Amino acid sequence: MSLRFDTVTVIGVGLLGGSLGLALRERELAGRIRGVGHRRSSLEAALQRGAIDAAHEDLAEGVADADLIVVCTPAATALAQLAEIRAHCRADAVVTDVASTKSRICAAGRALWPAPSRFVGSHPMAGSEKFGPEHAVATLYEGSVTFVEPPADHDPDAYAIVRGLWEALGSRTVEIAPDDHDAVVARTSHIPHIAAACLALLAAEQPGARAAAGGGFRDTTRVAAGRPEIWRDICLTNAESIGAGLQALSKLIAEAADAIGRGDATALEAFFERAGEARRQVTEK
Amino acid sequence: MSLRFDTVTVIGVGLLGGSLGLALRERELAGRIRGVGHRRSSLEAALQRGAIDAAHEDLAEGVADADLIVVCTPAATALAQLAEIRAHCRADAVVTDVASTKSRICAAGRALWPAPSRFVGSHPMAGSEKFGPEHAVATLYEGSVTFVEPPADHDPDAYAIVRGLWEALGSRTVEIAPDDHDAVVARTSHIPHIAAACLALLAAEQPGARAAAGGGFRDTTRVAAGRPEIWRDICLTNAESIGAGLQALSKLIAEAADAIGRGDATALEAFFERAGEARRQVTEK
Repeated sequence: MSLRFDTVTVIGVGLLGGSLGLALRERELAGRIRGVGHRRSSLEAALQRGAIDAAHEDLAEGVADADLIVVCTPAATALAQLAEIRAHCRADAVVTDVASTKSRICAAGRALWPAPSRFVGSHPMAGSEKFGPEHAVATLYEGSVTFVEPPADHDPDAYAIVRGLWEALGSRTVEIAPDDHDAVVARTSHIPHIAAACLALLAAEQPGARAAAGGGFRDTTRVAAGRPEIWRDICLTNAESIGAGLQALSKLIAEAADAIGRGDATALEAFFERAGEARRQVTEK
Repeated sequence: MSLRFDTVTVIGVGLLGGSLGLALRERELAGRIRGVGHRRSSLEAALQRGAIDAAHEDLAEGVADADLIVVCTPAATALAQLAEIRAHCRADAVVTDVASTKSRICAAGRALWPAPSRFVGSHPMAGSEKFGPEHAVATLYEGSVTFVEPPADHDPDAYAIVRGLWEALGSRTVEIAPDDHDAVVARTSHIPHIAAACLALLAAEQPGARAAAGGGFRDTTRVAAGRPEIWRDICLTNAESIGAGLQALSKLIAEAADAIGRGDATALEAFFERAGEARRQVTEK
């Protein structure tokens, strides 16, 4: 399959949207790249970086003639924009997104786009704690994994185009049901992020923390430097899995605290051994 | 001050003790380096690496003729060894340790060594999640910070020797009262470590976690790969500060969970903004 789009509209021109524009241009996959955003400064930065050819503050105008639309706004914003995109886009436009939560967005896509649906939800696992079009790079998606919802009542061409898009940008696509996706990323990304945020707040309360914070603290809390709007929206759109996971996390913390409280050397050593083994299991490639 | 020891005894020849031996040798600070350990395999590895000249399984024998003794065993073991060291070491030996908790060890040092005390507690903030003499390097302490208990009823020469030792190895010494030390490192190191361990356990419970665990998860949980005995002993010897901090952590997690439960976008954005600011404040140099 050879991919080539006349007009791609990228909604949200931050790190993910800006990098998508740069990658499409570098690989000559798009004739024209439109950027939609509500902040003039971000649109200007994306234009200057060459990530987009044209800037639109009006969503309806920006999506009107696109054959591919990629929604790169934070998850709750993306969810809220789908109805307007559907109302103004071409009937044959292929639509996908990059949000870190999938259940609600894919359900909205299925509700808005009639079968065979041309909306296919995706989640490229790319990015960093940096944000904004000034940090966009054409290589952002190379070597990443992109989760794509499994084919259901989708239009087969639209489905193939969305998978092909991510693969053309150097990502490996993996099918996963939206509910399973959200449960897994809650425990591998969302809850670790919330915990890192809590650890940063906890340390900042303590006088003298700066002198004592070393490489371990920096690594453990690195993700807490991410963009607040992204993480707010992730929490809003994956509340159930995150809520259940935070309860389980609190239970594990309480177990450790109990063992510490009773000075149980055997239980503590077993706890840290199990944790080291758990990490090896989850991170080994 | 020119430092030069006839006989240095390093108790515990893992990453910290082995690296100390290598660093002393490279800088020609010791005529002879004795290693004490209870595992023959670690002693053999330390001998092979050139970290020690002689291996002792018997503590009393190992410390008998040393002019400097550095206790590099996990914190609870170090605490338990002090009385035997005191009973068998020379009266003029200078004694220090490298344990990550200081209140109980420094209190034991003050109780065992008569004023002017030749025991001075220290904590070099060096190391990694690797362990064992096979990972020892002569440069481990270079560029690190070493916390040293403030001078109280110490022998001034012994005090100067301990500070001079760490500085000779390339570390910067910072005085901090043992109780303050333990409160600060609870929040910058011990609690982040326990949280990372809980996050690893939480992810491992979830099918499919391995495919979804990316760089963020690896960084957030990196410290959970540390040595179980070290962390067991840290928990046993800093139970009060860690216990209080874990309670505060659980409260922060509960606050985030509440905001997620009621879908409070404003509170969530403010939470992540405060956390990002807190991290910048603690980690900026």
